[in-house]
Amino acid sequence: MNRDYDCVFCKIVSVQAPSSVIFENNSIISFLDINPLADGHVLIVPRDHFTGLAEMPSKICSAMFSCIPMLGRALLQVTGAEGFNLLINHGSVAGQVVPHVHCHLIPRMPDDGLGYRWHAKQYEEGRSAELAAAFQAALSNQM
Amino acid sequence: MNRDYDCVFCKIVSVQAPSSVIFENNSIISFLDINPLADGHVLIVPRDHFTGLAEMPSKICSAMFSCIPMLGRALLQVTGAEGFNLLINHGSVAGQVVPHVHCHLIPRMPDDGLGYRWHAKQYEEGRSAELAAAFQAALSNQM
Repeated sequence: MNRDYDCVFCKIVSVQAPSSVIFENNSIISFLDINPLADGHVLIVPRDHFTGLAEMPSKICSAMFSCIPMLGRALLQVTGAEGFNLLINHGSVAGQVVPHVHCHLIPRMPDDGLGYRWHAKQYEEGRSAELAAAFQAALSNQM
Repeated sequence: MNRDYDCVFCKIVSVQAPSSVIFENNSIISFLDINPLADGHVLIVPRDHFTGLAEMPSKICSAMFSCIPMLGRALLQVTGAEGFNLLINHGSVAGQVVPHVHCHLIPRMPDDGLGYRWHAKQYEEGRSAELAAAFQAALSNQM
């Protein structure tokens, strides 16, 4: 088991820090966020310590997400929310505070004041083709 | 293959609508969002049509997310972003516009004006224990 002894989520995983656990299996543990954005705001964390999503082994990421539909249905049932956001912040610039990968499930209700700040743009002529080619090249080096 | 003939993402999957594809396999297709929140904003969608994340079969969700670390690394490399947000909106109340599950990867830079509106609260005494018990009961009925 990959562990960082200073990490609060590793402490929760090893039951050295308290949490309101709602679900756990061999790969992940899910508990209530202690500073919820909404009643029933849930976190899902891998048992192993990985700083960011981009560093996670594909298999563990896959195992982590196999539980998400089930947890999402439970969240809708328990909170009575009409929907939810799944959010993972990779890096402090993206709002990641605890450097142990964690997935937020945030219950949503009409007029709750939550949500992503959405300032959509459009690509200039040729930019999307250029970007797609750069992605394809970067991905071909990773596979 | 589960398909909705009126769905724009099903049209992209079946190459009846154009898109800037960056990656595809048997389970998913990933392409540039045509209304990006940031340069290199990517969508990942399952080939099969499912309206929302909570309705996805666990196996397909798992396959969809096994690609995420690789796509995240490519995004950081291509865009030069310092981090990214992974966002899935379940339900129109949560900001879901196209009713075919899709995962956003949004590159993040300092002072880009993006991010989740974050109004964290604290639970009143006893509420988190009550919620955790309700989640556990809801999940035991699903397993």
